[in-house]
Amino acid sequence: MLYEDFTVGMKFRSRDMVVSLEDVIAFAKAFDPQPFHTDPEAAKATFFKEHVASGWHTSAVTMRLITESLPVAGGIVGAGVDELRWPTALRPGDTIHLESEVVEMRTFKSRTDTGLVKFLVKTVAQDGRVVQSMMPNVFVPRAAA
Amino acid sequence: MLYEDFTVGMKFRSRDMVVSLEDVIAFAKAFDPQPFHTDPEAAKATFFKEHVASGWHTSAVTMRLITESLPVAGGIVGAGVDELRWPTALRPGDTIHLESEVVEMRTFKSRTDTGLVKFLVKTVAQDGRVVQSMMPNVFVPRAAA
Repeated sequence: MLYEDFTVGMKFRSRDMVVSLEDVIAFAKAFDPQPFHTDPEAAKATFFKEHVASGWHTSAVTMRLITESLPVAGGIVGAGVDELRWPTALRPGDTIHLESEVVEMRTFKSRTDTGLVKFLVKTVAQDGRVVQSMMPNVFVPRAAA
Repeated sequence: MLYEDFTVGMKFRSRDMVVSLEDVIAFAKAFDPQPFHTDPEAAKATFFKEHVASGWHTSAVTMRLITESLPVAGGIVGAGVDELRWPTALRPGDTIHLESEVVEMRTFKSRTDTGLVKFLVKTVAQDGRVVQSMMPNVFVPRAAA
């Protein structure tokens, strides 16, 4: 879809996706090696009191589902993200999906072939817990004038 | 370090870390399977005009270096991130390090055992390119009254 095909309020839903215990531990060992993410037993004595995924793992699986569910022509290129939040933690074995909505659109004076679409992207678990919300700004090609 | 040990303006630097071509492709295939991240040849005909890492890969390696360079007692637990930006793209083979600074500190009325420290974290490549900047809010334990 081109910039002109989007409107504020438009909504998109992704497929469901399971995040396994093995995935959670592998990501944590590579990128966020703290006991509450790498070790289900040790996690019980930490801030979280249970084993949870790294917030950055939640972001990574969210990006996977964004590439599948936001139909932007030419692919998803982000200019940046506002208000990245993890209201509750992603737990190993959770089944997640995305609920996305267009919240803002703008064009550039200097660059007429591209617009910017801001989405609110919520990552939701099977029990309704929001495990991440964020507002990415995505470059979207414009129709030729 | 406890909340009381931090002050606004305090700075931290991480070690240097190489992000390899293999790492860039593996992350992209798992979490951001778009040609400009997965395929060095196909990338030349895309928005970026070269092969670049996923911004979420940049975030993930940044988190790895945060766990090593921000000495928060009990580990790094983020309440969220403001203004996540990728001013330039991380390229395969780049050597990165973090330059972090305390930009804001606050306490809670309702929760006297914990404070919130906001850092500005810049991820910098060997040639000075800033490949990511963000402001994470981190929970930090307070000294007993």
